[in-house]
Amino acid sequence: MNIRDVGERGLIALIHRLQTTPPLGYIGIGDDAAYVPPSATGWLISQDMLVETIHFRWDWMTPEQVGAKAVAVNVSDIAAMGGVPKAILTSLSVPAALRVEAVEDLYRGMTRALDLCGAVLIGGDTVGSPDRLVIDVTVLGHPGPVGPVRRTGARPGDRLVVTGRLGAAHAGLMLLSHGVMWPSHSVHERSVQVAHIAPKARWECGVPIGQAAHALTDISDGLYAEIEELTRFGGIGATLFGEALPIDQATRAVARAFRADPIEYALYGGEDYELLAAIAPSKIAEVMRIATQTGVAITEVGVITDDPGIRLLRDGEEVKLGGEQTFNHFRVDRSS
Amino acid sequence: MNIRDVGERGLIALIHRLQTTPPLGYIGIGDDAAYVPPSATGWLISQDMLVETIHFRWDWMTPEQVGAKAVAVNVSDIAAMGGVPKAILTSLSVPAALRVEAVEDLYRGMTRALDLCGAVLIGGDTVGSPDRLVIDVTVLGHPGPVGPVRRTGARPGDRLVVTGRLGAAHAGLMLLSHGVMWPSHSVHERSVQVAHIAPKARWECGVPIGQAAHALTDISDGLYAEIEELTRFGGIGATLFGEALPIDQATRAVARAFRADPIEYALYGGEDYELLAAIAPSKIAEVMRIATQTGVAITEVGVITDDPGIRLLRDGEEVKLGGEQTFNHFRVDRSS
Repeated sequence: MNIRDVGERGLIALIHRLQTTPPLGYIGIGDDAAYVPPSATGWLISQDMLVETIHFRWDWMTPEQVGAKAVAVNVSDIAAMGGVPKAILTSLSVPAALRVEAVEDLYRGMTRALDLCGAVLIGGDTVGSPDRLVIDVTVLGHPGPVGPVRRTGARPGDRLVVTGRLGAAHAGLMLLSHGVMWPSHSVHERSVQVAHIAPKARWECGVPIGQAAHALTDISDGLYAEIEELTRFGGIGATLFGEALPIDQATRAVARAFRADPIEYALYGGEDYELLAAIAPSKIAEVMRIATQTGVAITEVGVITDDPGIRLLRDGEEVKLGGEQTFNHFRVDRSS
Repeated sequence: MNIRDVGERGLIALIHRLQTTPPLGYIGIGDDAAYVPPSATGWLISQDMLVETIHFRWDWMTPEQVGAKAVAVNVSDIAAMGGVPKAILTSLSVPAALRVEAVEDLYRGMTRALDLCGAVLIGGDTVGSPDRLVIDVTVLGHPGPVGPVRRTGARPGDRLVVTGRLGAAHAGLMLLSHGVMWPSHSVHERSVQVAHIAPKARWECGVPIGQAAHALTDISDGLYAEIEELTRFGGIGATLFGEALPIDQATRAVARAFRADPIEYALYGGEDYELLAAIAPSKIAEVMRIATQTGVAITEVGVITDDPGIRLLRDGEEVKLGGEQTFNHFRVDRSS
């Protein structure tokens, strides 16, 4: 049996099974980030790897964009634990034929992304590569005042809120993979291309939303997959309000051009790097005010139910959703 | 200009220049590991990447050996700061055609190596790969009672000590790269093959040697390159005692078979993962006792001088050494 047959989720499940229980005070595999003690002044840690041709392509993105994205996807994991990013380490596997200026630009992109959120580069490793650039970033962050905010903990009746917009990164990916290169002449197309090429991590929202949330995660594999994670334990489920999903005009237009339902982009498209939180009804008003404080849109998109499963309410009808279209790196790899 | 032209050290220097000063209480780029506060209960962090065909080959090593080595090289960096490894995160870029059993064995190898030193796997990332396996491990460790022990800090008159033996991993690499596959029928050959395939990190020596040392590092790029790092600041140098270098019979035999001077293997061969420390003369006896406590040989191999440069004392004659033969991942990459 090959990795192809089990897929990324199967592989993660396998690794999870092989893991020994982490010591008291640690958070191990299974959330957006790990945590090491002591309890008040410990560290959130996460690691995300970007592989040339799988996660980025030089004909789509500049080295500076690749560097900034490598930081953003990691910073997003710290925000997803209700924390503040403080430092990163980067491992680079660099082909000997890569221009030195490309590496400088890559680090410039990382530094700019770090400066935005006040974090610094403190270490890493640099090795050769027979061909492709591989970037692995480890990010360290401080938990917010309420400590690490887990993925689990949502309760029936909690409202589901998301930051920003959904599906745009997938729309951008669709354009790029069909030859509509950055920068497109269309404002709409550029706006979704940017969502894929230069995602904004919601580093400024992690702490305030985390303080009000029962559960918090970021949306890297599409809203559906993340809600699956959020409702994995406790016999709970979710109902989503189809009309409320924040899907912008550009994403809708791209989806229609590819004869797809825009909602599918929002539910199953990858790499939005928005935050998803389960909020007690009494705290919804407080969370909505965070949008004013941060300038980041926050939208109520559903509710946690005591019914397992994920349902979509649309035009007054409820449809049970399946996860077949969940983004799968290995599947994408095979088809490219 | 390509990465090939500047080499790994040039690239690291470039990254170092791009780095902003780390905040107070942090240790940034330039030592065996980074450090994040608070001062007594902070964390040492290091990251090392292994790339298939550059750092390991499936015809030379089993997946379990690759996993164990990925842990060992990282654990070594924590020992090199006088610390104790506690937890790791691993990023894997996995080809879809790799057998699931290979990944299981890889993790089994990691877990066994972690169990040895009492550390645990707490997180990471798993992504696809178009072809090669890439493993990036981040290790977190506690500093010893004297805090992080830096590479710099050696003083004239300090004795240089090393753990274990030198040059064996390079001898093993020479055999493997010339078609003498593991396990060789010769006991000697197997002993150096193992040094390359299954290096032992000196995790048990980091704290006790660190407590007695002015400076401490691990030997991943050959003794010469590490002494260069140790003497980089303060206008100091070193004199090495050629006859004292711990080079075992097997390494000598392999070197001679390849018409090389065994001392070159010890000075310039990579991947020994032994510790190198600068010890005040008054503490040498104490450090030698650590050998009895840990079962790891400790050898005095030289002395720190107030003369810059690195010299080798051999047959009563002093030779000034150069670093031209320093292990260079990019050079190795190009020639393979």
